[in-house]
Amino acid sequence: MLLDQGHKKRGRTPIIRAAIVGATGYAGAELVRLLTAHPAVELNALTSRTYTGEFYESVYPHLTGQVGQTCREQDINQVVAGADVLFLALPHGLSVPWVVAAYQAGKKVIDLGADFRFRRRDIYEKWYKVEHTAPELLAVAVYGLPELYREKIRGAAIIGNPGCYPTASVLGLAPLLGQGLIDENRLIIDAKSGVSGAGRGLALGAHYSEVNENVKAYNIAKHRHTPEIEQELAAMAGVPAGTLKISFSPHLIPMTRGILATAYADLRDGVTIEEEVLREKYREFYAGEPFVKITGADVWPQTKWCYGSNYVFIGLTVDLRTRRVVVTTAIDNLVKGAAGQAVQNMNIICGFPETTGLTGPGIWP
Amino acid sequence: MLLDQGHKKRGRTPIIRAAIVGATGYAGAELVRLLTAHPAVELNALTSRTYTGEFYESVYPHLTGQVGQTCREQDINQVVAGADVLFLALPHGLSVPWVVAAYQAGKKVIDLGADFRFRRRDIYEKWYKVEHTAPELLAVAVYGLPELYREKIRGAAIIGNPGCYPTASVLGLAPLLGQGLIDENRLIIDAKSGVSGAGRGLALGAHYSEVNENVKAYNIAKHRHTPEIEQELAAMAGVPAGTLKISFSPHLIPMTRGILATAYADLRDGVTIEEEVLREKYREFYAGEPFVKITGADVWPQTKWCYGSNYVFIGLTVDLRTRRVVVTTAIDNLVKGAAGQAVQNMNIICGFPETTGLTGPGIWP
Amino acid sequence: MLLDQGHKKRGRTPIIRAAIVGATGYAGAELVRLLTAHPAVELNALTSRTYTGEFYESVYPHLTGQVGQTCREQDINQVVAGADVLFLALPHGLSVPWVVAAYQAGKKVIDLGADFRFRRRDIYEKWYKVEHTAPELLAVAVYGLPELYREKIRGAAIIGNPGCYPTASVLGLAPLLGQGLIDENRLIIDAKSGVSGAGRGLALGAHYSEVNENVKAYNIAKHRHTPEIEQELAAMAGVPAGTLKISFSPHLIPMTRGILATAYADLRDGVTIEEEVLREKYREFYAGEPFVKITGADVWPQTKWCYGSNYVFIGLTVDLRTRRVVVTTAIDNLVKGAAGQAVQNMNIICGFPETTGLTGPGIWP
Amino acid sequence: MLLDQGHKKRGRTPIIRAAIVGATGYAGAELVRLLTAHPAVELNALTSRTYTGEFYESVYPHLTGQVGQTCREQDINQVVAGADVLFLALPHGLSVPWVVAAYQAGKKVIDLGADFRFRRRDIYEKWYKVEHTAPELLAVAVYGLPELYREKIRGAAIIGNPGCYPTASVLGLAPLLGQGLIDENRLIIDAKSGVSGAGRGLALGAHYSEVNENVKAYNIAKHRHTPEIEQELAAMAGVPAGTLKISFSPHLIPMTRGILATAYADLRDGVTIEEEVLREKYREFYAGEPFVKITGADVWPQTKWCYGSNYVFIGLTVDLRTRRVVVTTAIDNLVKGAAGQAVQNMNIICGFPETTGLTGPGIWP
Repeated sequence: MLLDQGHKKRGRTPIIRAAIVGATGYAGAELVRLLTAHPAVELNALTSRTYTGEFYESVYPHLTGQVGQTCREQDINQVVAGADVLFLALPHGLSVPWVVAAYQAGKKVIDLGADFRFRRRDIYEKWYKVEHTAPELLAVAVYGLPELYREKIRGAAIIGNPGCYPTASVLGLAPLLGQGLIDENRLIIDAKSGVSGAGRGLALGAHYSEVNENVKAYNIAKHRHTPEIEQELAAMAGVPAGTLKISFSPHLIPMTRGILATAYADLRDGVTIEEEVLREKYREFYAGEPFVKITGADVWPQTKWCYGSNYVFIGLTVDLRTRRVVVTTAIDNLVKGAAGQAVQNMNIICGFPETTGLTGPGIWP
Repeated sequence: MLLDQGHKKRGRTPIIRAAIVGATGYAGAELVRLLTAHPAVELNALTSRTYTGEFYESVYPHLTGQVGQTCREQDINQVVAGADVLFLALPHGLSVPWVVAAYQAGKKVIDLGADFRFRRRDIYEKWYKVEHTAPELLAVAVYGLPELYREKIRGAAIIGNPGCYPTASVLGLAPLLGQGLIDENRLIIDAKSGVSGAGRGLALGAHYSEVNENVKAYNIAKHRHTPEIEQELAAMAGVPAGTLKISFSPHLIPMTRGILATAYADLRDGVTIEEEVLREKYREFYAGEPFVKITGADVWPQTKWCYGSNYVFIGLTVDLRTRRVVVTTAIDNLVKGAAGQAVQNMNIICGFPETTGLTGPGIWP
Repeated sequence: MLLDQGHKKRGRTPIIRAAIVGATGYAGAELVRLLTAHPAVELNALTSRTYTGEFYESVYPHLTGQVGQTCREQDINQVVAGADVLFLALPHGLSVPWVVAAYQAGKKVIDLGADFRFRRRDIYEKWYKVEHTAPELLAVAVYGLPELYREKIRGAAIIGNPGCYPTASVLGLAPLLGQGLIDENRLIIDAKSGVSGAGRGLALGAHYSEVNENVKAYNIAKHRHTPEIEQELAAMAGVPAGTLKISFSPHLIPMTRGILATAYADLRDGVTIEEEVLREKYREFYAGEPFVKITGADVWPQTKWCYGSNYVFIGLTVDLRTRRVVVTTAIDNLVKGAAGQAVQNMNIICGFPETTGLTGPGIWP
Repeated sequence: MLLDQGHKKRGRTPIIRAAIVGATGYAGAELVRLLTAHPAVELNALTSRTYTGEFYESVYPHLTGQVGQTCREQDINQVVAGADVLFLALPHGLSVPWVVAAYQAGKKVIDLGADFRFRRRDIYEKWYKVEHTAPELLAVAVYGLPELYREKIRGAAIIGNPGCYPTASVLGLAPLLGQGLIDENRLIIDAKSGVSGAGRGLALGAHYSEVNENVKAYNIAKHRHTPEIEQELAAMAGVPAGTLKISFSPHLIPMTRGILATAYADLRDGVTIEEEVLREKYREFYAGEPFVKITGADVWPQTKWCYGSNYVFIGLTVDLRTRRVVVTTAIDNLVKGAAGQAVQNMNIICGFPETTGLTGPGIWP
């Protein structure tokens, strides 16, 4: 009567064959962790340039006994042919040929990189400093933030899976926008990220002894997630893309996982709103959302509440002394900020219950 | 066809009603996390002295939306009556009345404390410096290390759930003992633990600024887990309890979760064994064990491989230069070292597949 | 010819006798560390309520061999009589009788708490929710930020040593204010602090397992350092105290030492300034300051650069896209943010070279 | 009358010109930090292959304002000619030509690498797997552990500065050896090191996300510090090099600085010693040593007590139950384990007071 979860798929036909392209980066590894536990998915290809031919569990021993596969070359045609859904976890610019091939083959593709997150090609090209070689597919792609675009995602062929900072920033501000409450032209987001957001690539900025017991800002006013956040906030505010401009300041803090985005919004002249009223607006905005939790008065979200999980915690205050709303949003950058959100999108696309494989809470302490 | 895991128990009758006594300590919270996700368990009482009357999710917000209960008083009769299985996560000495009541009521009880781990009352009383008030139940209780005592656990009424250090230490050494290979009288275990092992109680020794960027030994040669390890190693070695004595040195290291136990065993005079042969013996010893993984040559276990999971990783070397075997064993102290092992014991007692609710791998990075 | 620094005061008459009241908190311990190495100071009283009668080096073994004293009771008359300079490291509200006694006895007193930082009694009483029992001394006290008030400090009898957040915040913004450059009414400071700022007192919010791998905001718009920052920024802006209001959002991050304050200032309408021009203004503003360093373009300060030291690093950008200046300032909260600044003030008051005992750079890595 | 320490050398003639070869690794940077504060040393060459031509303070901004030099090429002749003392902080094998040149030029040279630590060439070559190209200088070189070899160091031309693990291990065990107390053939050292010991070179094993919240053993029974420890323990025991063999197990723990070495020694048959008696022996052995501190009963050393300092803390117990002595020794691996000890050696060689520039205590918290 009870399933033995250790062998949950034995004797059952999985419904979906999934490929992970770029499976040995951190987002790829998180996809493997989530999808090996997903009851309706069979992982049929894990590709890696760095570890081609190596046993996946040797690369990531925490998954010992869970995967049983070897890393494959990144052969587009072969991988596309064998999969129903492709997850792309590649550096920006490299996803395009995969998306084109998958799209032409009628497969679903979820790109965890930036190449299909933008509606306007020029904004992407300006900030990422590359030419987009399949701009016609930008209009086909859907921005994969389920809380805002669930219905579009349902029928989408291509998902541009949101960045980690944009996920936290946009979810934290969305209920405030387009309501006549705040001045959308003065938004500030001060974000704090764990080091895993920088990936597995070696760099002095991710070297333990340089990062531990240390905090710094980086790329202030220049980070590439800035235009992505602006695009989505503009959409919520009902103004044209490119007209809403934010200050975005990322900081690197000494922890592995988690993003906390602290957002500042000025109340419009003449507008006053009680904190509890605004909190209730947030609760209504996210009513029924399985992954979004609004905290109570004076309770500020902590990133570790969502460690390893797909949950989002949002806390807020209305400071009438300075006439400013402050919102903090906590996510796990590798789950809701990357792999978990990708699985959530897959669930929606494939018609599975949206929370399948994603209900585990954060690990505390 | 697919279950919506977010509401996995809706419309189904859970088989087991469980109570957690001392639910707001770290082991208790980990039990709540694991049991809310368990498909056959209904949590019907969470008791707490400190937080009586408070909403559980306010105490542990990472479980927001998972529990829906309020912390109850520790009323023995009421709690025992309402539960099929009791998990006790109490300071030592306090479990006894609960165990007595549960036993008399014919309920199963799994004690995560030390009160029912010992076969010899005198050893318990000497090291813990309290009188045992129900010594007659020590013979009824079974030491809950499934890899060694699975069959006894199956029919047990009382489980003495192993301590965190003993779990790592005993699993790491068990295959070596009673084989004529090593000198059982000279064993040394040098263990490294994360800070969560000290619990949620406030103390300068767990104060962030005193522990971070710091390592120290503590209670060398005096730690209460020493006689527990000795009891089990003696049993494996086939010698009377109290005759095998080890050196046990715990260290506190700046991380939250995880124990690494490094064990040293001298080869007996005249005995020589190749490292690969010994590794194969370990593999055979743990063949079929769902949670124990033996690493390959030159691969030393890392505690983070099992972060949040019930897995155990064991690595070893035979150093013929010094004629010594060195074994390192990694666990998550709160899962395999406490709550996960308790759930594993419950699964065995209740006839569920042993891995139910416990198959999630470690969270990495 | 060379001094043996290990015994540097042997055979010399120290010039100043100093008492540290509240010597066993973290700020007190940092004062002891700095003053035992100071060539002109003799520590003649270390008081502690918690550790009265205990050997100081047992309380803080890192100072073994440096102190040689026992913690004394907090007997005001006796301590005041025996000291030339008193350092008070006490919870707010408790400094007043010490300051009164020292002032009447003609001794110098440097209060590391909040009681003498405010010029307006009403602001202090409103935010700290206590009555000030010696308000007449507020006008006597000087705010001890040497970079702004060096001359006043020189002759002061009472120093209100700045708070850790205000030190970072005010130094970061001072060169911007009163120049007609920015809108002083819209300033935002988003600060990130290590855990030692919370002191040595036990609390769940400083418990290792709750803080490690975690970040959260706390007391947003309510933190008591807010009015202190406002007071000083108002003074720099040339507007009355109480008229300039800021948003101040402190965050707790998983490290022991360090504060990074990220400040946001909107350029006034019609004002444009090149980043390099502004950077040059900062360099001029702090020209000759021994402890303040302005970083170059695209170099953002890191708190660990000042670990254990009295230095301050300031980085900035002018984002013409959003017409906003962003400044980040890094200090060690226990040195420049507390004990180091107090010693700097003592040096000024006593006529020693200002950097005496404070020239050690940060410890890296 | 008081020196302004910020400009302490202005107007004085430094006595010693020092060169640091390999100045941009962590040991090199620590040498720079210590020597810029040393009253009798002028740094006249900082060489670096990676950063040739770059301003040193740009490479290590924590030293902003302290150095004022540019990294130079590693031109042996030029560097040797300009320096009185050379500090070599190079990968093993690369020091030999520098040592040869310095020796021939009559300069003092302190090698922080392994090339001149061994008395027996064959042992060096076997463990380091390189040929030693100046073996004749091994007999000239002195092992630079002042507590054991102070007199030899005084007249030495070449110092083989001890490794970090050997410093902690040998100092912890030295008082026990050659006394007839313990069995010198069964020694075990289980050491725990911070990540900075791995240097500044990028590697997955020092990548923040892989190391944080994690502990592992590495190179058990194979680490190259093993024969160095054995050489020195053999010397203390009065037995030929190569006859005393230890088990040495290094572990990597999630902190930046610090080594804790836990040593296990079996009492010889028939020998019994009270713990306090042994502690007194340790105190006598290190009587007068400025940097070695023996803790009291039940007080175990913590690495953070020596954070940034040259101090060594040793704690011990005699466990008569298992007839074993356990000793733990804490150092800062970059100070007493590298740069600080090198400066201590320089002080001895140059006839300065041995503690000059090294008296700063650890930074706590």
